[in-house]
Amino acid sequence: MTWTLARRAERLNPSIIREILKVTERPGIVSLAGGLPAAEGFPVEAMREAAARVLTEAPREALQYAASEGFGPLRDWVAAQLATQGLKVDADQVLITTGSQQGLDLAGKVLLDPGSRVAVESPTYLGALQAFAPYEPEFVPVDCDDQGPVPTELQAARGARFLYMLPNFQNPSGRCIGAPRRDALMAECLRLGLPVLEDNPYGDLWFDQPPAAPLAAHAPDQVLYLGSFSKVLAPGLRLGYVVAPKPLYPKLLQAKQAADLHTPGFNQRVVYEVIKDGFLDRHVPTIRARYKAQRDAMKAALEQHLPAGCRWQLPDGGMFFWVELPEGLDTLALLPQAVEAGVAYVPGAAFYASAPRMNTLRLSFVTVSAERITQGVAALGRVFQQALESQP
Amino acid sequence: MTWTLARRAERLNPSIIREILKVTERPGIVSLAGGLPAAEGFPVEAMREAAARVLTEAPREALQYAASEGFGPLRDWVAAQLATQGLKVDADQVLITTGSQQGLDLAGKVLLDPGSRVAVESPTYLGALQAFAPYEPEFVPVDCDDQGPVPTELQAARGARFLYMLPNFQNPSGRCIGAPRRDALMAECLRLGLPVLEDNPYGDLWFDQPPAAPLAAHAPDQVLYLGSFSKVLAPGLRLGYVVAPKPLYPKLLQAKQAADLHTPGFNQRVVYEVIKDGFLDRHVPTIRARYKAQRDAMKAALEQHLPAGCRWQLPDGGMFFWVELPEGLDTLALLPQAVEAGVAYVPGAAFYASAPRMNTLRLSFVTVSAERITQGVAALGRVFQQALESQP
Repeated sequence: MTWTLARRAERLNPSIIREILKVTERPGIVSLAGGLPAAEGFPVEAMREAAARVLTEAPREALQYAASEGFGPLRDWVAAQLATQGLKVDADQVLITTGSQQGLDLAGKVLLDPGSRVAVESPTYLGALQAFAPYEPEFVPVDCDDQGPVPTELQAARGARFLYMLPNFQNPSGRCIGAPRRDALMAECLRLGLPVLEDNPYGDLWFDQPPAAPLAAHAPDQVLYLGSFSKVLAPGLRLGYVVAPKPLYPKLLQAKQAADLHTPGFNQRVVYEVIKDGFLDRHVPTIRARYKAQRDAMKAALEQHLPAGCRWQLPDGGMFFWVELPEGLDTLALLPQAVEAGVAYVPGAAFYASAPRMNTLRLSFVTVSAERITQGVAALGRVFQQALESQP
Repeated sequence: MTWTLARRAERLNPSIIREILKVTERPGIVSLAGGLPAAEGFPVEAMREAAARVLTEAPREALQYAASEGFGPLRDWVAAQLATQGLKVDADQVLITTGSQQGLDLAGKVLLDPGSRVAVESPTYLGALQAFAPYEPEFVPVDCDDQGPVPTELQAARGARFLYMLPNFQNPSGRCIGAPRRDALMAECLRLGLPVLEDNPYGDLWFDQPPAAPLAAHAPDQVLYLGSFSKVLAPGLRLGYVVAPKPLYPKLLQAKQAADLHTPGFNQRVVYEVIKDGFLDRHVPTIRARYKAQRDAMKAALEQHLPAGCRWQLPDGGMFFWVELPEGLDTLALLPQAVEAGVAYVPGAAFYASAPRMNTLRLSFVTVSAERITQGVAALGRVFQQALESQP
């Protein structure tokens, strides 16, 4: 063709999750694949009232071009909210983004050269790998145990531009890092001079007790923090934020201007109207209760239906179970059979920067009802049992 | 600091326009600087009704994660609308973006390597220079006369990754390229194998007659086309679109996924509700009438108040006058005096990729009322007159 692509375009690839989601939109498929929040939990009434109020009280401001930094009162709210979690920042360190996915893109744009090293948990969030990949980094997977990344393994990441982590109910593993491991990890990062990109979309979705303080609270100048309204309100608003160390903020802001000028002011004002008077304190517990019940349903179904030799940890929050099948099973190869049997999941291989473990998979317990979860896991159990029996 | 920046971060810089806008937010300043559409023209009532309808009829779909390509009916609408302008495309070539600024960023991401050449009109849209700059291209300014880029000058752009053009009421020059020049330019681009990035935010803002057919209509496979709802509805929604040649579409889509997953579905559905029944056919003429009256006010004020030796072309649409002062005056140096006198503009130097002409400036006639325009231009005239008199 007439067009010459940039070299980085080779690093852009179709999202396997989005491809799977297309298949699973067929009626009758129980999708445990997507990380779609339960739509029943969206605060529709509050949104409708807030939208009407914004378009009555400040319509022209909401519909006009606005500051790239974001809507002032919303930035103030974010800073105040983070303070309650032990992270003290100024509102002028907050940059409102078009979903926290944009925060990943901006971080990559400002911090990554071709060949730069980026340390990632193994497995890690696929969307982050996709956001960073076009900037052509070299990924350095950090070995994890069931407590999170192993601090002594960070040595191999020395000199990386940053360590990317999801400490709270990680996507895909569901694991929440406890306070002692956080202390040890941050001590090692400080020793190595290794900056951290802390991604926290799921931290509010705890079931029994909130997660430990953010990594950023340990070393505010060494941690770039990403937050999101997608899981506590609704993802279709595309509203997230970056909290940046002050020396880094101007470049991120300029990258934001170059990328989309600013995040829709209308959305920012609507969300601010919804949350400004403590709405989330009443609303988020209803999401937690719903997800906990669905987590319990999935736990019971996994115990009942998966063949012997399958392993998983019980997530204390978030949206996902991470399941390990007996060695030799390949979840990517088994997916068509699962879809045939009426259930979909994401093969774990998608979440590895390199050396994928083919016998892993991610199951979401938030999108479909407890009843459908049970039905889906039962079907999965049959597929895996059959695969085991036909192993050589 | 702990952080190491990417090399491309050096190419990120504060937007001079946004810095000027901050100054001009002071009460009492007549700002002819910003390209802010007249907020009085925003269809607030229609937006309010549409938002309520979307949040009543399809709230969960509007608030859930959605397809990266965009909302299907809106993509269909865009394709149908472009057909009326002579550009025949399939809806599956339409990618909805977070403002057309994002289209510029995605084009840069997919098409530009460090050192790639990008041909630009001289002067050109500052925001495009900012969007492309982090991908480290080398800009090749193409000489323009009062009809647009000079076809014989394109020879120098041979081998560039693309030629970036705003054919309709260009920002900053206000110039609309006529059909014969379009024919000549596209013939030369085809001869040279030079792809085109056609940016059309202002095409609907014509006063007496619509612009000639889009460049993309001449060579659909060789033109990447950008459109926007910012000027015909409201910019705070951040809604634009890319129409891509089919071989290019997948990479742009993957870049879009990596950048922000998708443009807010809520905004897409609200806009679709507003426009689906021909609303723009009734609404846009009211914007045209308003802007034409303000253009006329600025024309009269320029004729009355600017010193002899100042030159400008009458724009037949869009938002801007481009003014050339007598040689020797420096509009960047004069800006503080203008602000002191109560009026702001954008120095023309901001719009040049290289070799800025310091005696130029851009004036917007859409943001403030006719009365204020007259007042602002009168103040400008005094500043420029004084500067001329004090020239050595």
